Amino acid sequence: MAFSIVSWLDKLKNNKIFEMTVVAVIIISALEIGAKTFPLSDGAVDFTKILDKFITLFFLFEISVRFITDNNKKAFFKKGWNIFDTLVVAISLIPVDDSEMALLARLVRVFRVLRMVSVVPELRVLINSLLKAMPQLFYVVLLMFIIFYIYAAVGSYVFSTINPVLWGDIAISMLTLFRVMTFEDWTDVMYETMEIYPYSWIFYFTFIFFTAFAFLNMVIGIVVSVMEQEQAALARENAEENHEPTIASLQAEIQELKALIMAQQAASKPQE
Amino acid sequence: MAFSIVSWLDKLKNNKIFEMTVVAVIIISALEIGAKTFPLSDGAVDFTKILDKFITLFFLFEISVRFITDNNKKAFFKKGWNIFDTLVVAISLIPVDDSEMALLARLVRVFRVLRMVSVVPELRVLINSLLKAMPQLFYVVLLMFIIFYIYAAVGSYVFSTINPVLWGDIAISMLTLFRVMTFEDWTDVMYETMEIYPYSWIFYFTFIFFTAFAFLNMVIGIVVSVMEQEQAALARENAEENHEPTIASLQAEIQELKALIMAQQAASKPQE
Amino acid sequence: MAFSIVSWLDKLKNNKIFEMTVVAVIIISALEIGAKTFPLSDGAVDFTKILDKFITLFFLFEISVRFITDNNKKAFFKKGWNIFDTLVVAISLIPVDDSEMALLARLVRVFRVLRMVSVVPELRVLINSLLKAMPQLFYVVLLMFIIFYIYAAVGSYVFSTINPVLWGDIAISMLTLFRVMTFEDWTDVMYETMEIYPYSWIFYFTFIFFTAFAFLNMVIGIVVSVMEQEQAALARENAEENHEPTIASLQAEIQELKALIMAQQAASKPQE
Amino acid sequence: MAFSIVSWLDKLKNNKIFEMTVVAVIIISALEIGAKTFPLSDGAVDFTKILDKFITLFFLFEISVRFITDNNKKAFFKKGWNIFDTLVVAISLIPVDDSEMALLARLVRVFRVLRMVSVVPELRVLINSLLKAMPQLFYVVLLMFIIFYIYAAVGSYVFSTINPVLWGDIAISMLTLFRVMTFEDWTDVMYETMEIYPYSWIFYFTFIFFTAFAFLNMVIGIVVSVMEQEQAALARENAEENHEPTIASLQAEIQELKALIMAQQAASKPQE
Repeated sequence: MAFSIVSWLDKLKNNKIFEMTVVAVIIISALEIGAKTFPLSDGAVDFTKILDKFITLFFLFEISVRFITDNNKKAFFKKGWNIFDTLVVAISLIPVDDSEMALLARLVRVFRVLRMVSVVPELRVLINSLLKAMPQLFYVVLLMFIIFYIYAAVGSYVFSTINPVLWGDIAISMLTLFRVMTFEDWTDVMYETMEIYPYSWIFYFTFIFFTAFAFLNMVIGIVVSVMEQEQAALARENAEENHEPTIASLQAEIQELKALIMAQQAASKPQE
Repeated sequence: MAFSIVSWLDKLKNNKIFEMTVVAVIIISALEIGAKTFPLSDGAVDFTKILDKFITLFFLFEISVRFITDNNKKAFFKKGWNIFDTLVVAISLIPVDDSEMALLARLVRVFRVLRMVSVVPELRVLINSLLKAMPQLFYVVLLMFIIFYIYAAVGSYVFSTINPVLWGDIAISMLTLFRVMTFEDWTDVMYETMEIYPYSWIFYFTFIFFTAFAFLNMVIGIVVSVMEQEQAALARENAEENHEPTIASLQAEIQELKALIMAQQAASKPQE
Repeated sequence: MAFSIVSWLDKLKNNKIFEMTVVAVIIISALEIGAKTFPLSDGAVDFTKILDKFITLFFLFEISVRFITDNNKKAFFKKGWNIFDTLVVAISLIPVDDSEMALLARLVRVFRVLRMVSVVPELRVLINSLLKAMPQLFYVVLLMFIIFYIYAAVGSYVFSTINPVLWGDIAISMLTLFRVMTFEDWTDVMYETMEIYPYSWIFYFTFIFFTAFAFLNMVIGIVVSVMEQEQAALARENAEENHEPTIASLQAEIQELKALIMAQQAASKPQE
Repeated sequence: MAFSIVSWLDKLKNNKIFEMTVVAVIIISALEIGAKTFPLSDGAVDFTKILDKFITLFFLFEISVRFITDNNKKAFFKKGWNIFDTLVVAISLIPVDDSEMALLARLVRVFRVLRMVSVVPELRVLINSLLKAMPQLFYVVLLMFIIFYIYAAVGSYVFSTINPVLWGDIAISMLTLFRVMTFEDWTDVMYETMEIYPYSWIFYFTFIFFTAFAFLNMVIGIVVSVMEQEQAALARENAEENHEPTIASLQAEIQELKALIMAQQAASKPQE
């Protein structure tokens, strides 16, 4: 009988309507999260509490179904998305009555919306491809951090007496430099220091130049690597589809021909 | 006789001068719309009213010609541009005397300028290629919406007491986040929340990072897919133009050769 | 003797030192233009006047040399750069004493700096490639102008009573929309209209979306076309350099082989 | 014995742990630089002084090891990174007691962080590829400078009386134009001059258009050249790995075949 329940759950998991229901509950969960940011009547607040419990139980049910019907239970928790789903559901289950923890409980519920990504395969592919691009960015990000760190140290040493709010210590200076990089009121920052150090525009210009250049390099790096992957995938596909003989196979056949003719020649020679 | 009128209209439709006239009338219509935004003398206002009637009638005439001369009248309204043209002309025909509806009538007339797109083939191609790029953007836009929604919910929960004008509810928060994404006075928004929550810069930094990354991914996605289409089109063109023999055809010929030589060998063997 | 002067001028024109002198005089001319924007002593002002005359005469001499040594004098004024150079020199020659025209005279002298482009071949190539990219941009720019025009008309109709400084007429509205497109204090513009029309954010969002999308399309269009040109140039170069036999030539040789073998077979048959 | 020390140092240099120690000391040096920007207790200040001496001595030791173990001592100072490392260490060695020079001494110590780049090979590769991209940018940067210079001269001539803070001389004008290029409060600059010269928006629009276009051209130029290099590298790699016979080698084999058959034919002819 246990087997029949598992097989029934398996059918349920692969049922199109069940999949749709999961997506629908996630959307309802998202709408509830949004609705809570508006001032609500007492009745509506009570309704969201009940809705919240229902959503938590439904998610618990869904993740259980996915776990029970998985053939390889050890591998289940090796998949990032499964761990993520389980964590979100588990934390939702912790009862929060204390008003102090209420904000935290609310924040955890927000992450339920991210379950949309774990449920819709196209979004999962997108996220995976984003994550795959990360490692090759590591050294460019490190380089950019070094540029930021050096400029922040110099800015903090030289400008901290001019405006401690912007250049007080290295952490604040890095924040100010990020602001300069986004061109947000960066001239105000520059004009202020130029009153004391008229040549401080060189500091800002070189910083903008280096970060823009490093950023550009990063973008180009991603574009090039993505295109190469696409072209390699395309080439592989072509090779598989066409079954066109390679030049090497042609060579092999020509060599066979030569061997044939030479054998013929050898055979015909004794006749002479 | 009916036939002769249709054939005359058909000639008219394909007449270069008629096509030019249609473009000219659209440009005049656009200029009239622009002129109306300036303070006009009474005489000029009267003139625009007459001009407006003439333009409406001309557009009615032009769309009628296009409909009458179309061989497949059922398919006529299946083309998006035809529906668009007919709608714009039809709404222009509704008489608007009421001062309240005057603004709406004016707005509808503005869309006449879009007829430029439906008349100039190059612009139509451009718009079609833009629309074709849309579906592949759907999931990236969805992902970006999820990022916005989650950050707006968190922002609204945590910051709404600090500044309700910026973080009052989830809708206002999303607007504020869009502002942050365009780097428009985003540091003002950040500095305000950092006074209460000194680590809230993490909120803004991760948000800028995720949206910039998703946006970048979208741009690269379009670039790659456009280039692939272009290369595929180019390859197809090359293949059609060159008629260069494929490696497969070479193989076939070499195999024929082998067969010939083997036959020769077989024939010469009995002589021994 | 006339011939010997021409040949001497021809030698001069192709002299490396003369070319360097021309570049040096253009740089001096640029420095003089820059120096004039600073407050100068009387002596310095007198010096710039003499320098100015010398530069004008030198440019006159240089363009004369180029004209005299040109073999095809009719074609000389068909080249855009020659016309540009001659115009700049000719206008510099007009004596300007009147104080009212002094500003205009100064402005014309500024264009001498552009002669740098006409003299340095690498810059000329760069400008030419920029100009070549223009025509393919025409329809995207037209589309963008239509988007701007429609939104400016709507903005002017609906918002002109809210803030006539930003939305007074269609020209001012287009300027305001360009400002919105550059994200420069665009939220101030939006928040102002949202007070009267709370849903006017849709106006700004769709505008930003359409222009950003059209702009992106333009950039991608240029990238793709530039890369295609480069690849075509590369392929042409490869084909010229390698002299690698084509598959078609291989086919011809295999067919020759077949003919040979068949002839052999035909010749050996009578022996049977 | 001298030899055994050198070989021992050589072993040390290539020791993984020693390499890690160098990276660790650079990170500690960076942290110390950052820590100094915060207000420190007297004990902490004393500690940083001792730490500073240790770091300087360690760097001196490390660079000595690298110099001693280098086989070609003449070539050692021809490598940019070696010169950079030696300079940073040498300047750190100069004793600075004078309070006036303290700031300079601090700034030099900041450059120690850049040693991270010279030690981590991946970062060195990145920087080298950035430097390699520089020369091809030279003419685009020159063109952009010419655009800036001309617009700054015109702006300074025409607008200097309106606002000398922004347009006082050509240097200040170039700074203002860079601000306009980054879209930072550029409309404030424009609205001010439009009050006197209503058509001065043309000045700003054409400037933004030209610089944006030149910048775009620069980006595209880099993308295209990087992709070509990558494709060339890929093609080279493929050719080396595959060892696939070229069409030329096939042709050679077919010609051998033809020669064989013709020889056979010549030999068989006398039989007739």
